[in-house]
Amino acid sequence: MVDRQNVMGKRKLETCFSPALFVPGENNDSIVVILDILRASSAICTAFANGAVAIIPVADVSEAKDYKARGYLVAAERDGYVLDFADFGNSPFNFTREKVQGKTIVYSTTNGTGIINLASSAYMTVVGSFLNIGALTRWLIKQERNVLLFCAGWKNRFNLEDTICAGAIAEKLMSTSLYSTICDSTLAALDLWSLAKNDITGYIGKAAQRSRLRDKKLDDCIGFCLTADYTKKIPVIKDGVLVSL
Amino acid sequence: MVDRQNVMGKRKLETCFSPALFVPGENNDSIVVILDILRASSAICTAFANGAVAIIPVADVSEAKDYKARGYLVAAERDGYVLDFADFGNSPFNFTREKVQGKTIVYSTTNGTGIINLASSAYMTVVGSFLNIGALTRWLIKQERNVLLFCAGWKNRFNLEDTICAGAIAEKLMSTSLYSTICDSTLAALDLWSLAKNDITGYIGKAAQRSRLRDKKLDDCIGFCLTADYTKKIPVIKDGVLVSL
Repeated sequence: MVDRQNVMGKRKLETCFSPALFVPGENNDSIVVILDILRASSAICTAFANGAVAIIPVADVSEAKDYKARGYLVAAERDGYVLDFADFGNSPFNFTREKVQGKTIVYSTTNGTGIINLASSAYMTVVGSFLNIGALTRWLIKQERNVLLFCAGWKNRFNLEDTICAGAIAEKLMSTSLYSTICDSTLAALDLWSLAKNDITGYIGKAAQRSRLRDKKLDDCIGFCLTADYTKKIPVIKDGVLVSL
Repeated sequence: MVDRQNVMGKRKLETCFSPALFVPGENNDSIVVILDILRASSAICTAFANGAVAIIPVADVSEAKDYKARGYLVAAERDGYVLDFADFGNSPFNFTREKVQGKTIVYSTTNGTGIINLASSAYMTVVGSFLNIGALTRWLIKQERNVLLFCAGWKNRFNLEDTICAGAIAEKLMSTSLYSTICDSTLAALDLWSLAKNDITGYIGKAAQRSRLRDKKLDDCIGFCLTADYTKKIPVIKDGVLVSL
């Protein structure tokens, strides 16, 4: 869509629905916002809200184990379940102030690290969620940059929860008239958000991830993950490590 | 989503938003419906409506040229434009009865052939559009098969026009209660269709492909492509060639 973006000098706003749709190198100029609402990006925002100093994303379980042996706090899950050697999984409720304040956490999730690597070509990569949506969008608006909303999806599939969060962010950005979009994914996210916004929890009731988490009895945190403005922290990736902006 | 599909013995209904999201081998059991509304799948439906006998999809321009030299009618476009050696491009208005009745057409499009190859592992692959939506859905309902609605997208990107057509088909299938879906893409398509259905042309006005076609003065056929039930023909792929079912 490069050919028609930056209409009248506006910043471009785009949305990517899945890591499988991400084209590395196309967003060197953009701030990429990673959205993995249920639950990784909500958990990461919560960790910083509760005083975590840094989060080191790692891809392999073996790498996470090595960190654990060296005394790090380790969050590690696969398909939602906490791995046996880990201190916690990726429920935001795990990342309490008692556990994380002043700590560096090593974090290995099903989706997360691959996405962070994909986004590494961007100008800057931050982590978004409903929990930090107000602070995040205010900060984005202050930057003179194109924005790509990057939905983590589930095993490369489109998902509703990341999409409506993208729509919610897009609505706030578009309302400034600083941004333009001719990206159909952004338009769809805006439309789905318009259907979801008056009852987000009700809307997400039909999402596949809602059912998966319920089946695994991991759905206690969904209401929390859909809560706006729990924190003003904006996690950002610096040299491969997540820190608070 | 295999783990949670076929709920209570129902047929599963899934939607794929882009060739980049298609997982070959996952749909061996399904009827795949290829949707490329603006304009390839609408053009193909029109060709059969006007009496074409078969359409041979080819990937390479050189292959299309070879066929042309052997006396075939050739439809070939790249990025919307008719290639110089071709008889026509992929506007449905090209495929008139005068030109196509009783003929076999060789067809090379930007998107199409790659998608047909991807879908070749499916139980059966048919071509859908608004133009044949009634006949197509009545036929699907008669089959005892899972259905995958496969949106061609644009250069691997999500697009609105294929998605709302998927939503329109999904609405008709789901209304029978023979199908179940826990596929978020299908749910999103249904929701976007609910927003589009009362003014499809107005809704598609914002789609990126609408702008691309307008810029190239190729948008004259959009209203036609969004017209329901112009034909009862259902193009199906048999041994790599499109014929009417």
